Amino acid sequence: MALTEADKAGRDLFAGWVAEAGLSLTIDAVGNMFALKAGTNPALAPVMSGSHLDTVATGGRFDGALGVLAALAVAETMAPSPRGLCVANFTNEEGARFAPDMLGSLVAVGGLSVAAARATEGVDGVALGEALDGIGYAGAGTGPIPPHAFVELHVEQGPVLHEADAPLAAVIGVQGISWRSVVFEGEANHAGATPQRLRKDAGRSAIEFAAAALALPERFGDELLVTVGRVVMEPSLINVIPARASVTVDLRHPDAQTLAEADAAVEALAAAGTVTPLARFDPVVFDPRVVDVIDHAAAGRGLSARRMISGAGHDAQMLARVCPAAMIFAPSIDGISHNPAEATDAADIDAAVMVLADVIATLCQKETPWPAS
Amino acid sequence: MALTEADKAGRDLFAGWVAEAGLSLTIDAVGNMFALKAGTNPALAPVMSGSHLDTVATGGRFDGALGVLAALAVAETMAPSPRGLCVANFTNEEGARFAPDMLGSLVAVGGLSVAAARATEGVDGVALGEALDGIGYAGAGTGPIPPHAFVELHVEQGPVLHEADAPLAAVIGVQGISWRSVVFEGEANHAGATPQRLRKDAGRSAIEFAAAALALPERFGDELLVTVGRVVMEPSLINVIPARASVTVDLRHPDAQTLAEADAAVEALAAAGTVTPLARFDPVVFDPRVVDVIDHAAAGRGLSARRMISGAGHDAQMLARVCPAAMIFAPSIDGISHNPAEATDAADIDAAVMVLADVIATLCQKETPWPAS
Repeated sequence: MALTEADKAGRDLFAGWVAEAGLSLTIDAVGNMFALKAGTNPALAPVMSGSHLDTVATGGRFDGALGVLAALAVAETMAPSPRGLCVANFTNEEGARFAPDMLGSLVAVGGLSVAAARATEGVDGVALGEALDGIGYAGAGTGPIPPHAFVELHVEQGPVLHEADAPLAAVIGVQGISWRSVVFEGEANHAGATPQRLRKDAGRSAIEFAAAALALPERFGDELLVTVGRVVMEPSLINVIPARASVTVDLRHPDAQTLAEADAAVEALAAAGTVTPLARFDPVVFDPRVVDVIDHAAAGRGLSARRMISGAGHDAQMLARVCPAAMIFAPSIDGISHNPAEATDAADIDAAVMVLADVIATLCQKETPWPAS
Repeated sequence: MALTEADKAGRDLFAGWVAEAGLSLTIDAVGNMFALKAGTNPALAPVMSGSHLDTVATGGRFDGALGVLAALAVAETMAPSPRGLCVANFTNEEGARFAPDMLGSLVAVGGLSVAAARATEGVDGVALGEALDGIGYAGAGTGPIPPHAFVELHVEQGPVLHEADAPLAAVIGVQGISWRSVVFEGEANHAGATPQRLRKDAGRSAIEFAAAALALPERFGDELLVTVGRVVMEPSLINVIPARASVTVDLRHPDAQTLAEADAAVEALAAAGTVTPLARFDPVVFDPRVVDVIDHAAAGRGLSARRMISGAGHDAQMLARVCPAAMIFAPSIDGISHNPAEATDAADIDAAVMVLADVIATLCQKETPWPAS
């Protein structure tokens, strides 16, 4: 989990490998780590590649770490090139401890102030700034923003590539994300002695809201993903009508207009509660020129890159605000992620890292800036 | 909460008052406390009155304690009578820590073995026997079971008397209770990358089950009370599809047949989960002869006792298995109970305790056994 002692241990290990590889490390004010392998022409902005080392409470080994370590492996082995390569580890991508998710990359591209990020309270009640200071990763530097381009390798975290027996994907965009929590208030009362008509049952309000939210794909189609991951009732006793109940809702859709309509539908369903927005990112379309580089690199390795939209949010969508960006997906076995059983075949990892190396090599050779798109 | 240090402190205080009043105290193997004021004819079974000193996590001051202290006050002040009065404090009436509720009185009347009761695991994972030993209230005695009659004063815990501006009730029976927990299993997976059709969402199963259970009064009528007091999801993260979700359901109905049908309906709704029955008590009809004594005592004080069925379960329903029993209800302001705001007007307390004293006096004078009913 982000900014815990376990995160510190992972960061320390990464920093050691960065030093061994002869890269220079910069840490910014929200703990983002930027390891630079310099290019032969220091006047050119570097290419950036990376992902995140944090994970969720029940996470696996690949989500995030693959993209950071793959970029580091490329930096260690690449031939000299005009542009350098910056290997990035972004803070709190998951959002499992601090909302919003992708917080570190959001701050890096100027979408959230450092002060606001530091003030964010985690699910454990600890402020992000306090946790960051606690592990000693609040830096004073800044990364090479904007880079020439950003490319991120990540596991798909879904079953699409696995089901299609496809070796990798060139990711053309990211669906939009909308997170909120809704709290319903009622009155704690005796489960047996309170007639139906006189109940103020916060738990029932929460359950009916959650059931209606989960049914929204019937109205908006199965591209709308709805998850109610957390329901908490108080006092949480079998024979006491709940006085308070909170529900989280995670909505995703690849189309901005449909996501906005689904948002409005959830707000309408939550009218009897108090809604707190926790995160909101519109769908993102990646730069087709970077996607083309990925396609060509895959073809050069005799592989066919499937084009797909990411179901999960990723740091690449933040970098896409400031530079051409895209992603490579490696398959997730059985689509399992955010789960200790998360895995990817070693052969698929090899192929994806080789394609990433070729993409980075191509981008690092490109001495001219991108034409206005 | 039952058998905690706070319960021990309450028990110790009660035991001190019992000693001051010159009553003899017996503690049985599950911690039920029986304080006897002897009658003038030791050959006659005593009358028993009492309730419980345990409460729920968010309980008030009256639920349970009123009935124990009122009976003690009567024992302290009553004139000598042929039959004695036994003041009872039953263990774990609430069921908030150990299931089933009314456990102490159930054991006292032979409905559950001491060994089974001691093995019961609390919501905190502690066995009842361990908790009981820990506070030093596992006794070796037995109460005077069956007593000549049992009468319990309790707050209504509902709004019926308060709304009708009635000073007290003669309780003619108790609705049936059925408790169960249902656990649904799924697969933890990424909220954004897992298509609708491939989700194994334990949280959704739990929410849809709970919503359907809460809607059962539409089918069985508003006398059916359904409470879902606790919902727990795992891993309980906003962006992870729940792998596991558990729900508690508390059903109540005054009619045995309808309660059985509602039970069957809940079991059918829970078919995809694993059901654990936690408590099941059929509706109880109190002895009309004891109810008549309450009516007459109220009339003698110029009060009209409303006849009603109890919504909550009470120790009196266990004692009703072995002797004539009934209850007196005092009003609950705004019907609030299981809540720190629980309250009853002092004048209503006075009236109910005086009626209880008169009922006990009448029963203690009755030297002949009850005719077969």
